Amino acid sequence: MTTTDARRTDPIEVPRGLNGVVAAHTAIGDVRGEEGFYHYRGHPAVELAETRSLEEVWALVLDGGLPDPTRLAAFRDELASARRVPSSVWDALPAITPREPGRPLLALTTAVALLGSQLGMRPLYDADPAERRADLVRLAAAIPTLVAAQHRIARGLEPVEPVDGLGHAANYLAMLSGEPPEPRLARALEQYLIATIDHGFNASTFTARVIASTGSDAASCIVGALGALAGPRHGGAPSRALDAIEQIGAPERAAAWVREQLAAGGRVMGFGHAVYRTEDPRSRLLKGVARSLGGPTVELAIATEERIEDALRELKPGRELHANVEYYAGVVMGECGVPRELFTCTFAAARAIGWSAHVLEQAADGKMIRPSSRYVGPPVHSPEV
Amino acid sequence: MTTTDARRTDPIEVPRGLNGVVAAHTAIGDVRGEEGFYHYRGHPAVELAETRSLEEVWALVLDGGLPDPTRLAAFRDELASARRVPSSVWDALPAITPREPGRPLLALTTAVALLGSQLGMRPLYDADPAERRADLVRLAAAIPTLVAAQHRIARGLEPVEPVDGLGHAANYLAMLSGEPPEPRLARALEQYLIATIDHGFNASTFTARVIASTGSDAASCIVGALGALAGPRHGGAPSRALDAIEQIGAPERAAAWVREQLAAGGRVMGFGHAVYRTEDPRSRLLKGVARSLGGPTVELAIATEERIEDALRELKPGRELHANVEYYAGVVMGECGVPRELFTCTFAAARAIGWSAHVLEQAADGKMIRPSSRYVGPPVHSPEV
Repeated sequence: MTTTDARRTDPIEVPRGLNGVVAAHTAIGDVRGEEGFYHYRGHPAVELAETRSLEEVWALVLDGGLPDPTRLAAFRDELASARRVPSSVWDALPAITPREPGRPLLALTTAVALLGSQLGMRPLYDADPAERRADLVRLAAAIPTLVAAQHRIARGLEPVEPVDGLGHAANYLAMLSGEPPEPRLARALEQYLIATIDHGFNASTFTARVIASTGSDAASCIVGALGALAGPRHGGAPSRALDAIEQIGAPERAAAWVREQLAAGGRVMGFGHAVYRTEDPRSRLLKGVARSLGGPTVELAIATEERIEDALRELKPGRELHANVEYYAGVVMGECGVPRELFTCTFAAARAIGWSAHVLEQAADGKMIRPSSRYVGPPVHSPEV
Repeated sequence: MTTTDARRTDPIEVPRGLNGVVAAHTAIGDVRGEEGFYHYRGHPAVELAETRSLEEVWALVLDGGLPDPTRLAAFRDELASARRVPSSVWDALPAITPREPGRPLLALTTAVALLGSQLGMRPLYDADPAERRADLVRLAAAIPTLVAAQHRIARGLEPVEPVDGLGHAANYLAMLSGEPPEPRLARALEQYLIATIDHGFNASTFTARVIASTGSDAASCIVGALGALAGPRHGGAPSRALDAIEQIGAPERAAAWVREQLAAGGRVMGFGHAVYRTEDPRSRLLKGVARSLGGPTVELAIATEERIEDALRELKPGRELHANVEYYAGVVMGECGVPRELFTCTFAAARAIGWSAHVLEQAADGKMIRPSSRYVGPPVHSPEV
């Protein structure tokens, strides 16, 4: 017998990578790949991004329902406070920020762990739901503050503190550049953030839930999820599509570029998705957001997308390779002034809201996630038993 | 359809918590709960702890075979170097170590993330196996250095650097106390560390593998695993058994104490295990190690164990509640001079060796671990599709 759990005697074999295995029941959201549709708490995510503020959607995802005006005002106040990190963290940022800005997500992971440590966050199972929620709000709200501060410190600039009068997305842009952003740019980034809060049971969300299931503290859950997001297979390289658009440079060069990529055995970054058979609804949304911003890069991206899809239809017939979230996410973030090396950290700022809800849900569930393994190594030497 | 992975159309329902689900095939080790037996790479773990050095077993677990003298010498040199952290980390430790020593594991998590960040660790899928292994050795080897330094800093003491002539366990004790330890204490701690390197597919090992499967960097994998170990359900409270032994104070009070615990609805800490039906082989080993150290606490622990087992046989008939690893682990660590609040961090120093091997194995596998979820929330409002 090779199971590590005596409550079962027969190990259950499933597809590799737990592919298709239902690891949890969730009321937070769902992705319907065949329909090109996803939602949060029953609300279509695209509609939320088009009609709601980030703070409203954050409250929806975390608490289960859209907030009334009174609750929304209280939540905005909570976020304004949570966005400021304690001086024990703020003052330590220069010491934990590498001056060579290579892997900002690992620097952010360090800062988030420090925040949890300095705030003395307690194990989830020692805390009541209100304390768990407060810890998770503090962590998720602080991510833009930490990302922006570390970005500036790495470049020898003074970090900028959050401003109480601005929303979450506007604050992020203001802390990055040192200037309050144009409202249309803050709104565009806000729509990106809303659209990427949650998306099924991806590896980072699952990591957060596994850690939460041990009863660990909220910071350890978010830190673990950041670690999974740092993987290129998951969230690690969303600037590739924007790099490619610039490399192509003109729509008429797109078809040749696609041929080169495929001939070199490469994939065409920003196209195709494991879940969606149709157009990625996030891509459709963000294309509209990009179009509303306008400008030469947006024009180039839209024209190039069409040529790339044409080329892929010809070269990969029947594969339904459409632009995915990465394609227009990069265009929107770039137009909003987010530096390319911070695209994954910015994605993390949105996804941390989703992780928070999943940590709360998992902590309420109370069952430890602990699969088994099958031993396939050499036979036992000189066994004792 | 609620699957988030279009390669499957039928979600696979499995027991809650993935209980019994084979999440990976591994050649690193196995636990045979019914036989009271576990091994690393086919070598009985108890035999390894009795006859080998930690450095030999570390090489075995990481590389797949026991090292010959030449390789062992080279590995000892590699560890001596890896045990020293760069000055960018060492000098930052005061800034990231809370002065109230409440949650040292979260402070360690911060330090390990910082180490990976300052060393610029690259994604596993960008690194070749030698680079992956070197990164993991640097992380695991540095944990005792970081734990001891943070322990001293939190108490206003100067941190102590590792000494090249000492083994891994002896170095840890020397860095904690500032004095080279008695060899018998270093050997006892070494045996504890060997015995706890790996133990089936626990939540922290699984977390490390999920993160590794995204292609993330080695530090993110170890940091995530530390987060899971911080959960009380997993590795979070190994001092409870030693606390209980001291609270009982005399063997003749053990039976009454057990009755009180059970009457209060509590569990008897240090007794019973999810996997082992027999005596926990780690407990049997560590009882022998404790006995070799001798002293009043050890005598009390042994006599109390017998009385507690007698009481449990009477009060919980048929349950086979034996002392688990927590019981004698606490006794051994305490006798070796490890402060009680560092028991989980010390466990992490051992388990990080096992995590390293699992990260290497998962990175070589290359398949992302990405289960699905089932949406059970409210129906979709005003659907778009």
